[in-house]
Amino acid sequence: MRVLGIDPGSAVTGFGVVSSDAGRLVHVAHGALRPLRQASLAARLDHLYRGVQEVIAHHRPDVAVVEQVFVAVSPRSALVLGQARGAVLAALASAGLTVTEYSATQTKQAVTGSGRAAKRQVQNMVKRLLDLERIPTPDASDALAAAICHAQTSPLAVLGVPHGRRRGGVRRGVRLQVRPVR
Amino acid sequence: MRVLGIDPGSAVTGFGVVSSDAGRLVHVAHGALRPLRQASLAARLDHLYRGVQEVIAHHRPDVAVVEQVFVAVSPRSALVLGQARGAVLAALASAGLTVTEYSATQTKQAVTGSGRAAKRQVQNMVKRLLDLERIPTPDASDALAAAICHAQTSPLAVLGVPHGRRRGGVRRGVRLQVRPVR
Repeated sequence: MRVLGIDPGSAVTGFGVVSSDAGRLVHVAHGALRPLRQASLAARLDHLYRGVQEVIAHHRPDVAVVEQVFVAVSPRSALVLGQARGAVLAALASAGLTVTEYSATQTKQAVTGSGRAAKRQVQNMVKRLLDLERIPTPDASDALAAAICHAQTSPLAVLGVPHGRRRGGVRRGVRLQVRPVR
Repeated sequence: MRVLGIDPGSAVTGFGVVSSDAGRLVHVAHGALRPLRQASLAARLDHLYRGVQEVIAHHRPDVAVVEQVFVAVSPRSALVLGQARGAVLAALASAGLTVTEYSATQTKQAVTGSGRAAKRQVQNMVKRLLDLERIPTPDASDALAAAICHAQTSPLAVLGVPHGRRRGGVRRGVRLQVRPVR
């Protein structure tokens, strides 16, 4: 199973692709989409939409994961984030992908064993779990973490050998969140 | 010049197309896009994106107009609205359309002569200005009003004969708002 994680943002949208083969996590790719700042809002959202489509065409994921938004931010920030999410989600659905959402707490829990882990700790664990040479950027790291969370907890993944770093993390066989947020 | 007005919403997205020929307003089409309520968020945004593309393919507008958002709503509502706007704006830009934004006040002013006009008054004026048989639904009416606002105030439109109902409304030759909102 190949999982595409996306961390949508108006300035930078991180993405990460991991595959899970009998419980073993394998890094496929990660990166970030950065629409031109000086372009109009609509042009930047179009860029984002096309970028997501290109990532899908290139890496052929089976499912997609995005972070659930708990809106503690201002209405203005929520609108701006919502616009980026709208373009990303439409692009994911256009490719026929099912989108699952996980909260930041669930993702941190799955990757580090603690729902309150610091950003740096998540980055370190993403690097270790995927055997990366370098720590990925925060946006790509969040996207990879979301993909790992899904790969480790989805019914397909848990049929295989349990991952070594699961102690204290997510209980195997428990599907964390499959209800799409409206 | 043919103007497509869009009023994005998560449940209903209104659209309206008007053309302006030497200052004369002509109704082309209006309607609403209603993604299935029971579909997932991503599927509904995909539906919205495709719907906008179909409207463009069918009616071939030269420019697009959406209402500017003054976020006085809750962060949760702003996120939901933002997602719909994101899909709509990405679809407009994918067709190469320039998107202009007007505030609700500017639109009301252009259509009724008062920036504080009631919704019903806007609907009545849209019906009159476009010589419609019936009052359009609120969503389509807002979209048509935005299109009228642009058709009446853009530099191309004002080269022609002034529209009869402009008294007390927008000053001719004044471009209200061309800066894209980020």
